[in-house]
Amino acid sequence: MAGDTRDAIVAAARAEFSAKGYDSTSLRAVARRAEVDPALVHHYFDDKADLFAATLSFPIRPDILVAEVLRGPRDAIGATIIRTIVTQFDAGPARDALLGLLRTALGHEFAAGMLRQFLVREVLGRVAAVISTEIGTDDADLRASLAASQIVGLIFARYGIRIDALAEASNDEIVRRIGPVVQRYLLGE
Amino acid sequence: MAGDTRDAIVAAARAEFSAKGYDSTSLRAVARRAEVDPALVHHYFDDKADLFAATLSFPIRPDILVAEVLRGPRDAIGATIIRTIVTQFDAGPARDALLGLLRTALGHEFAAGMLRQFLVREVLGRVAAVISTEIGTDDADLRASLAASQIVGLIFARYGIRIDALAEASNDEIVRRIGPVVQRYLLGE
Repeated sequence: MAGDTRDAIVAAARAEFSAKGYDSTSLRAVARRAEVDPALVHHYFDDKADLFAATLSFPIRPDILVAEVLRGPRDAIGATIIRTIVTQFDAGPARDALLGLLRTALGHEFAAGMLRQFLVREVLGRVAAVISTEIGTDDADLRASLAASQIVGLIFARYGIRIDALAEASNDEIVRRIGPVVQRYLLGE
Repeated sequence: MAGDTRDAIVAAARAEFSAKGYDSTSLRAVARRAEVDPALVHHYFDDKADLFAATLSFPIRPDILVAEVLRGPRDAIGATIIRTIVTQFDAGPARDALLGLLRTALGHEFAAGMLRQFLVREVLGRVAAVISTEIGTDDADLRASLAASQIVGLIFARYGIRIDALAEASNDEIVRRIGPVVQRYLLGE
């Protein structure tokens, strides 16, 4: 029951952040959308940033994703990463949450930090660290960051501003075109 | 004199949009920062979207950029595009303007449309159209969009959320790593 209320608040917050952006979202409006007393929002969450963080629960845990990527063959790493992203993004909540994070990250350092931590430190940095040891390079951070730039750009262009040709491309086409680029960044010379 | 006032308003607007984001910027605050009467802002600009568009005057015209890219050797197209971007972005105003556009584009369709038009239709689409005719492919739109996704991602990650390894890399390093990717998207098999 308590969990239901908290879940309802998080779902309402995700919808409000997605529709209005971080700055224009009020905890009062979230409470109204969730049909709960505003005091309950303050009961479950410290402040707006805390509530925002709660909306970002991704359907897949970073450590599981990293393990999955590293379990497969090395020449499929780029494709596996891109396929995981586009498949996850077929579902609305994961897409809305990450787009909200992208949008907020350009104006708020706390959100920029969350995005850097999730993308680079938790996921790509771990993959790049293992690979760099295997192939003997010492630029794992730069490799992870370059891969992150392409992934952020894909999300921004396909799901954010919806550039026609990217928004209409099939998941297979996206994996076929962008997988090799992420592969190159992580494992290329 | 009139031009000076208009320029002062645009400069103030660029600073306000950059600091507060599109939604939280008021024309009144822009007037205050520019030290002009609010009525003057309304004299020069129809509304906030019009003023926002005026802040986006890029230091290089799209048609000149396209001509420059196409004048060079075909195997340097990716590097030329990336070098032009990072060089332009060494200057603050171009960087702030495009970051403001990225930020606003995720929440406002008019800004998303401006970004799509600038990146894809005016620049990369024209380059891709010429190249696709030369190499005989029929997917110029997708090629332009893929290149756009990497360019947006680079801007977002290096100048927006400032991922350490990307923010600290030299322009030469960025051109060396990302140029070949844009090259591949535009001209690869």
